[in-house]
Amino acid sequence: MKVIVDLCIVPLGVGVSLSTYIAACERVLAEAGLETRLHANGTNIEGEWEDVFAAIERCHEAVHEMGAPRISTTIKLGTRTDRNQSLDDKVRSVEEKLRGVDAKP
Amino acid sequence: MKVIVDLCIVPLGVGVSLSTYIAACERVLAEAGLETRLHANGTNIEGEWEDVFAAIERCHEAVHEMGAPRISTTIKLGTRTDRNQSLDDKVRSVEEKLRGVDAKP
Amino acid sequence: MKVIVDLCIVPLGVGVSLSTYIAACERVLAEAGLETRLHANGTNIEGEWEDVFAAIERCHEAVHEMGAPRISTTIKLGTRTDRNQSLDDKVRSVEEKLRGVDAKP
Amino acid sequence: MKVIVDLCIVPLGVGVSLSTYIAACERVLAEAGLETRLHANGTNIEGEWEDVFAAIERCHEAVHEMGAPRISTTIKLGTRTDRNQSLDDKVRSVEEKLRGVDAKP
Repeated sequence: MKVIVDLCIVPLGVGVSLSTYIAACERVLAEAGLETRLHANGTNIEGEWEDVFAAIERCHEAVHEMGAPRISTTIKLGTRTDRNQSLDDKVRSVEEKLRGVDAKP
Repeated sequence: MKVIVDLCIVPLGVGVSLSTYIAACERVLAEAGLETRLHANGTNIEGEWEDVFAAIERCHEAVHEMGAPRISTTIKLGTRTDRNQSLDDKVRSVEEKLRGVDAKP
Repeated sequence: MKVIVDLCIVPLGVGVSLSTYIAACERVLAEAGLETRLHANGTNIEGEWEDVFAAIERCHEAVHEMGAPRISTTIKLGTRTDRNQSLDDKVRSVEEKLRGVDAKP
Repeated sequence: MKVIVDLCIVPLGVGVSLSTYIAACERVLAEAGLETRLHANGTNIEGEWEDVFAAIERCHEAVHEMGAPRISTTIKLGTRTDRNQSLDDKVRSVEEKLRGVDAKP
Protein backbone atom coordinates (compact mmCIF):
# COMPACT_ATOMS: atom_id res chain seq x y z
CA MET A 1 0.00 0.00 0.00
CA LYS A 2 1.37 3.39 -0.99
CA VAL A 3 1.50 6.06 1.71
CA ILE A 4 2.08 9.80 1.87
CA VAL A 5 3.57 10.66 5.26
CA ASP A 6 4.49 13.81 7.13
CA LEU A 7 7.17 13.00 9.71
CA CYS A 8 8.18 15.25 12.61
CA ILE A 9 10.74 13.73 15.01
CA VAL A 10 11.42 15.56 18.29
CA PRO A 11 14.35 14.20 20.37
CA LEU A 12 14.05 14.89 24.12
CA GLY A 13 16.81 15.21 26.69
CA VAL A 14 19.33 16.72 24.26
CA GLY A 15 18.64 20.42 24.63
CA VAL A 16 16.76 22.67 22.23
CA SER A 17 18.87 22.47 19.06
CA LEU A 18 17.46 19.63 17.04
CA SER A 19 18.68 20.21 13.48
CA THR A 20 21.62 17.77 13.78
CA TYR A 21 19.15 14.99 14.65
CA ILE A 22 16.76 15.98 11.86
CA ALA A 23 19.65 15.98 9.38
CA ALA A 24 20.58 12.45 10.49
CA CYS A 25 16.99 11.35 9.81
CA GLU A 26 17.08 12.98 6.37
CA ARG A 27 20.13 10.84 5.59
CA VAL A 28 18.37 7.68 6.79
CA LEU A 29 15.39 8.46 4.57
CA ALA A 30 17.61 9.19 1.57
CA GLU A 31 19.53 5.94 2.07
CA ALA A 32 16.18 4.13 2.06
CA GLY A 33 15.59 5.54 -1.42
CA LEU A 34 12.44 7.34 -0.38
CA GLU A 35 11.09 10.45 -2.08
CA THR A 36 11.15 13.27 0.50
CA ARG A 37 10.55 17.02 0.85
CA LEU A 38 11.89 18.83 3.91
CA HIS A 39 9.74 21.69 5.25
CA ALA A 40 9.79 23.92 8.32
CA ASN A 41 7.77 21.55 10.52
CA GLY A 42 8.72 18.11 9.23
CA THR A 43 9.48 16.01 6.18
CA ASN A 44 7.01 14.76 3.59
CA ILE A 45 7.66 11.19 2.46
CA GLU A 46 6.20 9.09 -0.35
CA GLY A 47 6.63 5.32 -0.59
CA GLU A 48 5.36 1.85 0.20
CA TRP A 49 4.02 1.34 3.75
CA GLU A 50 6.66 -1.21 4.83
CA ASP A 51 9.57 0.82 3.39
CA VAL A 52 8.41 4.06 4.96
CA PHE A 53 7.79 2.68 8.45
CA ALA A 54 10.98 0.60 8.43
CA ALA A 55 12.88 3.80 7.58
CA ILE A 56 11.11 5.75 10.34
CA GLU A 57 12.10 3.01 12.81
CA ARG A 58 15.74 3.39 11.66
CA CYS A 59 15.41 7.15 12.22
CA HIS A 60 14.37 6.47 15.84
CA GLU A 61 17.27 4.04 16.25
CA ALA A 62 19.71 6.60 14.81
CA VAL A 63 18.49 9.41 17.06
CA HIS A 64 18.66 7.18 20.16
CA GLU A 65 22.22 6.15 19.17
CA MET A 66 23.14 9.85 18.89
CA GLY A 67 22.28 10.14 22.59
CA ALA A 68 18.61 11.07 22.83
CA PRO A 69 17.00 8.94 25.58
CA ARG A 70 13.46 9.82 24.51
CA ILE A 71 11.79 10.71 21.21
CA SER A 72 8.35 12.21 20.60
CA THR A 73 7.25 11.89 16.97
CA THR A 74 4.17 13.06 15.10
CA ILE A 75 3.15 11.39 11.84
CA LYS A 76 0.36 12.35 9.45
CA LEU A 77 -0.36 9.58 7.02
CA GLY A 78 -2.62 9.28 3.99
CA THR A 79 -3.63 6.30 1.87
CA ARG A 80 -6.12 6.22 -0.96
CA THR A 81 -7.55 3.55 -3.25
CA ASP A 82 -9.31 5.87 -5.71
CA ARG A 83 -6.25 7.33 -7.38
CA ASN A 84 -2.48 7.52 -7.28
CA GLN A 85 -1.26 10.87 -5.98
CA SER A 86 2.31 12.08 -5.45
CA LEU A 87 3.65 14.69 -3.03
CA ASP A 88 3.95 17.16 -5.90
CA ASP A 89 0.42 16.37 -7.15
CA LYS A 90 -0.96 17.36 -3.74
CA VAL A 91 0.71 20.78 -3.78
CA ARG A 92 -0.10 21.36 -7.47
CA SER A 93 -3.75 20.56 -6.88
CA VAL A 94 -4.10 23.35 -4.30
CA GLU A 95 -1.99 25.81 -6.30
CA GLU A 96 -4.20 25.30 -9.37
CA LYS A 97 -7.27 26.08 -7.29
CA LEU A 98 -5.55 29.22 -6.01
CA ARG A 99 -4.82 30.33 -9.60
CA GLY A 100 -8.42 29.56 -10.60
CA VAL A 101 -7.35 26.80 -12.97
CA ASP A 102 -10.24 24.44 -13.70
CA ALA A 103 -8.35 21.24 -13.03
CA LYS A 104 -9.21 17.78 -11.76
CA PRO A 105 -9.68 18.40 -8.03
CA MET B 1 11.79 -1.36 20.08
CA LYS B 2 8.80 -0.71 22.30
CA VAL B 3 6.47 2.13 21.27
CA ILE B 4 3.63 4.07 22.82
CA VAL B 5 1.31 5.28 20.06
CA ASP B 6 -1.76 7.47 19.82
CA LEU B 7 -3.73 6.52 16.70
CA CYS B 8 -6.47 8.63 15.11
CA ILE B 9 -7.87 7.24 11.84
CA VAL B 10 -10.19 9.49 9.79
CA PRO B 11 -11.89 7.83 6.80
CA LEU B 12 -12.84 10.24 3.99
CA GLY B 13 -15.60 9.91 1.41
CA VAL B 14 -17.98 8.03 3.73
CA GLY B 15 -19.89 10.87 5.34
CA VAL B 16 -19.47 12.25 8.85
CA SER B 17 -20.30 9.24 11.05
CA LEU B 18 -17.04 7.46 11.67
CA SER B 19 -17.64 5.31 14.76
CA THR B 20 -18.33 2.12 12.74
CA TYR B 21 -14.88 2.46 11.14
CA ILE B 22 -13.19 3.23 14.45
CA ALA B 23 -14.85 0.19 16.03
CA ALA B 24 -13.51 -1.99 13.18
CA CYS B 25 -10.01 -0.68 13.92
CA GLU B 26 -10.44 -1.43 17.63
CA ARG B 27 -11.21 -5.04 16.67
CA VAL B 28 -8.10 -5.23 14.45
CA LEU B 29 -5.93 -3.92 17.31
CA ALA B 30 -7.50 -6.37 19.79
CA GLU B 31 -6.94 -9.30 17.41
CA ALA B 32 -3.29 -8.24 17.20
CA GLY B 33 -3.07 -8.71 20.96
CA LEU B 34 -2.08 -5.10 21.57
CA GLU B 35 -2.73 -3.20 24.78
CA THR B 36 -5.08 -0.31 23.92
CA ARG B 37 -7.10 2.49 25.57
CA LEU B 38 -9.84 4.20 23.56
CA HIS B 39 -10.33 7.92 24.21
CA ALA B 40 -12.38 10.72 22.67
CA ASN B 41 -9.80 11.64 20.02
CA GLY B 42 -8.04 8.36 19.29
CA THR B 43 -6.69 5.14 20.73
CA ASN B 44 -3.55 4.73 22.81
CA ILE B 45 -1.54 1.62 21.92
CA GLU B 46 1.44 -0.05 23.58
CA GLY B 47 3.57 -2.71 21.89
CA GLU B 48 6.58 -3.59 19.78
CA TRP B 49 7.23 -1.32 16.75
CA GLU B 50 6.67 -4.01 14.08
CA ASP B 51 3.50 -5.35 15.73
CA VAL B 52 1.99 -1.90 16.18
CA PHE B 53 2.66 -0.66 12.65
CA ALA B 54 1.61 -3.95 11.05
CA ALA B 55 -1.68 -3.66 12.96
CA ILE B 56 -2.15 -0.03 11.89
CA GLU B 57 -1.61 -1.10 8.27
CA ARG B 58 -4.33 -3.74 8.74
CA CYS B 59 -6.60 -1.01 10.13
CA HIS B 60 -6.10 0.98 6.92
CA GLU B 61 -6.79 -2.12 4.83
CA ALA B 62 -9.95 -2.86 6.83
CA VAL B 63 -11.28 0.71 6.50
CA HIS B 64 -10.59 0.75 2.74
CA GLU B 65 -12.39 -2.62 2.41
CA MET B 66 -15.37 -1.13 4.25
CA GLY B 67 -15.64 1.39 1.41
CA ALA B 68 -13.54 4.42 2.35
CA PRO B 69 -11.53 5.50 -0.71
CA ARG B 70 -9.24 7.76 1.31
CA ILE B 71 -7.93 7.78 4.88
CA SER B 72 -6.21 10.57 6.80
CA THR B 73 -4.48 9.32 9.94
CA THR B 74 -2.58 11.09 12.71
CA ILE B 75 -0.11 9.16 14.87
CA LYS B 76 1.80 10.36 17.91
CA LEU B 77 4.59 8.00 18.79
CA GLY B 78 7.03 7.80 21.66
CA THR B 79 10.09 5.64 22.24
CA ARG B 80 12.56 5.82 25.11
CA THR B 81 15.75 4.02 26.04
CA ASP B 82 16.07 5.35 29.60
CA ARG B 83 13.18 3.44 31.14
CA ASN B 84 10.24 1.20 30.42
CA GLN B 85 6.95 3.05 30.69
CA SER B 86 3.41 1.75 30.15
CA LEU B 87 0.28 3.62 29.07
CA ASP B 88 -0.97 3.52 32.66
CA ASP B 89 2.41 4.70 34.04
CA LYS B 90 2.14 7.81 31.87
CA VAL B 91 -1.27 8.77 33.23
CA ARG B 92 -0.33 7.85 36.83
CA SER B 93 2.78 9.99 36.64
CA VAL B 94 0.76 13.14 35.85
CA GLU B 95 -1.99 12.28 38.34
CA GLU B 96 0.56 11.91 41.14
CA LYS B 97 1.94 15.35 40.33
CA LEU B 98 -1.59 16.75 40.43
CA ARG B 99 -2.16 15.22 43.88
CA GLY B 100 1.20 16.56 45.07
CA VAL B 101 2.63 13.08 45.55
CA ASP B 102 6.43 13.16 45.60
CA ALA B 103 6.95 10.36 43.12
CA LYS B 104 9.53 9.46 40.51
CA PRO B 105 8.75 11.91 37.68
CA MET C 1 -17.81 27.74 17.76
CA LYS C 2 -17.55 24.65 19.97
CA VAL C 3 -14.38 22.57 19.63
CA ILE C 4 -13.18 19.16 20.74
CA VAL C 5 -9.40 19.26 21.14
CA ASP C 6 -6.65 16.77 21.92
CA LEU C 7 -3.68 18.62 23.39
CA CYS C 8 -0.16 17.21 23.73
CA ILE C 9 2.45 19.66 25.04
CA VAL C 10 6.13 18.62 24.88
CA PRO C 11 8.59 20.96 26.67
CA LEU C 12 12.14 20.86 25.26
CA GLY C 13 15.40 21.63 27.02
CA VAL C 14 14.24 20.37 30.42
CA GLY C 15 15.23 16.72 30.30
CA VAL C 16 12.99 13.72 29.71
CA SER C 17 10.62 13.87 32.69
CA LEU C 18 7.67 15.92 31.59
CA SER C 19 4.86 15.05 34.02
CA THR C 20 5.42 18.13 36.22
CA TYR C 21 4.87 20.35 33.18
CA ILE C 22 1.82 18.37 32.06
CA ALA C 23 0.35 18.63 35.57
CA ALA C 24 0.84 22.42 35.46
CA CYS C 25 -1.10 22.52 32.18
CA GLU C 26 -3.89 20.40 33.68
CA ARG C 27 -4.22 23.03 36.42
CA VAL C 28 -4.36 25.85 33.85
CA LEU C 29 -7.12 24.03 31.94
CA ALA C 30 -9.08 23.34 35.14
CA GLU C 31 -8.81 27.00 36.21
CA ALA C 32 -10.22 27.94 32.80
CA GLY C 33 -13.30 25.87 33.66
CA LEU C 34 -12.83 23.58 30.68
CA GLU C 35 -14.08 19.99 30.53
CA THR C 36 -11.00 17.75 30.20
CA ARG C 37 -9.97 14.08 30.16
CA LEU C 38 -6.31 13.17 30.69
CA HIS C 39 -5.01 10.15 28.72
CA ALA C 40 -1.63 8.55 28.11
CA ASN C 41 -0.73 10.73 25.12
CA GLY C 42 -2.48 14.00 25.84
CA THR C 43 -5.57 15.69 27.22
CA ASN C 44 -8.98 15.87 25.58
CA ILE C 45 -10.68 19.24 25.96
CA GLU C 46 -14.20 20.44 25.18
CA GLY C 47 -15.19 24.11 25.03
CA GLU C 48 -15.64 27.26 23.01
CA TRP C 49 -12.87 28.03 20.49
CA GLU C 50 -11.70 31.29 22.15
CA ASP C 51 -11.71 29.79 25.66
CA VAL C 52 -9.81 26.67 24.60
CA PHE C 53 -7.08 28.43 22.64
CA ALA C 54 -6.66 31.17 25.25
CA ALA C 55 -6.15 28.41 27.83
CA ILE C 56 -3.65 26.59 25.60
CA GLU C 57 -1.72 29.87 25.24
CA ARG C 58 -1.65 30.16 29.05
CA CYS C 59 -0.31 26.57 29.19
CA HIS C 60 2.57 27.60 26.92
CA GLU C 61 3.23 30.68 29.06
CA ALA C 62 3.20 28.56 32.24
CA VAL C 63 5.60 25.95 30.81
CA HIS C 64 7.99 28.66 29.57
CA GLU C 65 7.86 30.31 33.03
CA MET C 66 8.75 26.94 34.59
CA GLY C 67 11.99 27.08 32.60
CA ALA C 68 11.38 25.36 29.28
CA PRO C 69 12.96 27.49 26.53
CA ARG C 70 11.15 25.65 23.73
CA ILE C 71 7.80 23.84 23.42
CA SER C 72 6.58 21.49 20.70
CA THR C 73 2.82 20.94 20.85
CA THR C 74 0.46 18.77 18.80
CA ILE C 75 -3.24 19.59 18.67
CA LYS C 76 -6.04 17.61 17.06
CA LEU C 77 -9.16 19.68 16.72
CA GLY C 78 -12.69 18.90 15.59
CA THR C 79 -15.65 21.16 14.86
CA ARG C 80 -19.03 20.18 13.46
CA THR C 81 -22.20 22.00 12.47
CA ASP C 82 -24.45 18.96 12.05
CA ARG C 83 -24.76 18.00 15.70
CA ASN C 84 -23.53 18.72 19.19
CA GLN C 85 -21.17 16.00 20.45
CA SER C 86 -19.38 15.80 23.79
CA LEU C 87 -16.11 14.03 24.66
CA ASP C 88 -18.11 11.24 26.32
CA ASP C 89 -20.49 10.96 23.33
CA LYS C 90 -17.49 10.27 21.09
CA VAL C 91 -16.23 7.38 23.22
CA ARG C 92 -19.76 6.00 23.80
CA SER C 93 -20.46 6.00 20.08
CA VAL C 94 -17.51 3.69 19.37
CA GLU C 95 -18.18 1.51 22.41
CA GLU C 96 -21.78 0.94 21.31
CA LYS C 97 -20.55 -0.19 17.90
CA LEU C 98 -18.13 -2.57 19.60
CA ARG C 99 -20.96 -4.06 21.65
CA GLY C 100 -23.12 -4.35 18.53
CA VAL C 101 -25.67 -1.86 19.84
CA ASP C 102 -27.76 -0.43 17.02
CA ALA C 103 -27.36 3.18 18.00
CA LYS C 104 -27.20 6.50 16.22
CA PRO C 105 -23.70 6.47 14.69
CA MET D 1 3.93 35.20 21.80
CA LYS D 2 5.27 34.26 18.37
CA VAL D 3 4.29 30.81 17.04
CA ILE D 4 5.36 28.56 14.21
CA VAL D 5 2.41 26.39 13.18
CA ASP D 6 1.80 23.52 10.78
CA LEU D 7 -1.88 23.44 9.85
CA CYS D 8 -3.67 20.52 8.19
CA ILE D 9 -7.43 20.96 7.76
CA VAL D 10 -9.47 17.90 6.68
CA PRO D 11 -13.14 18.59 5.81
CA LEU D 12 -15.46 15.59 6.28
CA GLY D 13 -18.71 14.81 4.52
CA VAL D 14 -17.71 16.44 1.24
CA GLY D 15 -16.08 13.56 -0.62
CA VAL D 16 -12.40 12.93 -1.15
CA SER D 17 -11.29 15.97 -3.15
CA LEU D 18 -10.20 18.55 -0.65
CA SER D 19 -8.02 21.00 -2.60
CA THR D 20 -10.84 23.54 -3.10
CA TYR D 21 -11.23 23.76 0.69
CA ILE D 22 -7.50 23.99 1.27
CA ALA D 23 -7.24 26.78 -1.31
CA ALA D 24 -10.00 28.68 0.52
CA CYS D 25 -7.99 28.38 3.74
CA GLU D 26 -4.86 29.62 1.97
CA ARG D 27 -6.82 32.73 0.97
CA VAL D 28 -8.00 33.27 4.57
CA LEU D 29 -4.43 33.02 5.84
CA ALA D 30 -3.15 35.41 3.15
CA GLU D 31 -5.89 37.94 3.96
CA ALA D 32 -4.77 37.75 7.60
CA GLY D 33 -1.33 38.91 6.46
CA LEU D 34 0.36 35.78 7.79
CA GLU D 35 3.60 34.36 6.43
CA THR D 36 2.80 30.89 5.02
CA ARG D 37 4.39 28.01 3.09
CA LEU D 38 2.15 25.38 1.50
CA HIS D 39 3.48 21.81 1.46
CA ALA D 40 2.12 18.39 0.54
CA ASN D 41 0.64 17.67 3.97
CA GLY D 42 -0.30 21.09 5.29
CA THR D 43 0.65 24.74 5.53
CA ASN D 44 3.40 26.24 7.67
CA ILE D 45 2.44 29.53 9.30
CA GLU D 46 4.44 32.10 11.23
CA GLY D 47 2.86 34.86 13.33
CA GLU D 48 1.58 36.07 16.66
CA TRP D 49 -0.48 33.53 18.66
CA GLU D 50 -3.75 35.52 18.59
CA ASP D 51 -3.47 36.35 14.87
CA VAL D 52 -2.68 32.76 13.89
CA PHE D 53 -5.48 31.12 15.90
CA ALA D 54 -8.04 33.76 14.92
CA ALA D 55 -7.15 33.03 11.27
CA ILE D 56 -7.43 29.27 11.81
CA GLU D 57 -10.88 29.81 13.35
CA ARG D 58 -11.87 31.78 10.23
CA CYS D 59 -10.59 28.85 8.10
CA HIS D 60 -12.95 26.53 9.99
CA GLU D 61 -15.83 29.00 9.52
CA ALA D 62 -15.07 29.28 5.79
CA VAL D 63 -14.91 25.50 5.28
CA HIS D 64 -18.19 24.99 7.18
CA GLU D 65 -19.82 27.74 5.06
CA MET D 66 -18.62 25.91 1.92
CA GLY D 67 -20.74 22.95 3.05
CA ALA D 68 -18.54 20.72 5.18
CA PRO D 69 -20.55 19.64 8.25
CA ARG D 70 -17.48 18.35 10.09
CA ILE D 71 -13.78 19.25 10.12
CA SER D 72 -10.84 17.31 11.55
CA THR D 73 -7.71 19.45 11.88
CA THR D 74 -4.18 18.67 13.02
CA ILE D 75 -1.91 21.45 14.25
CA LYS D 76 1.76 21.27 15.21
CA LEU D 77 2.82 24.34 17.10
CA GLY D 78 6.15 25.59 18.39
CA THR D 79 7.06 28.48 20.68
CA ARG D 80 10.47 29.37 22.05
CA THR D 81 11.86 32.00 24.39
CA ASP D 82 15.57 31.41 23.72
CA ARG D 83 15.71 32.82 20.19
CA ASN D 84 13.65 34.15 17.32
CA GLN D 85 13.39 31.64 14.48
CA SER D 86 11.53 31.97 11.18
CA LEU D 87 10.07 29.25 8.94
CA ASP D 88 13.01 29.66 6.57
CA ASP D 89 15.55 29.56 9.45
CA LYS D 90 14.18 26.15 10.45
CA VAL D 91 14.68 24.64 6.99
CA ARG D 92 18.06 26.36 6.52
CA SER D 93 19.32 25.01 9.82
CA VAL D 94 18.73 21.39 8.74
CA GLU D 95 20.05 21.99 5.22
CA GLU D 96 23.30 23.42 6.59
CA LYS D 97 23.76 20.30 8.72
CA LEU D 98 23.16 18.15 5.62
CA ARG D 99 25.83 20.09 3.72
CA GLY D 100 28.21 19.80 6.66
CA VAL D 101 28.26 23.54 7.23
CA ASP D 102 29.43 24.37 10.75
CA ALA D 103 26.62 26.74 11.60
CA LYS D 104 24.75 27.75 14.70
CA PRO D 105 22.46 24.76 15.28
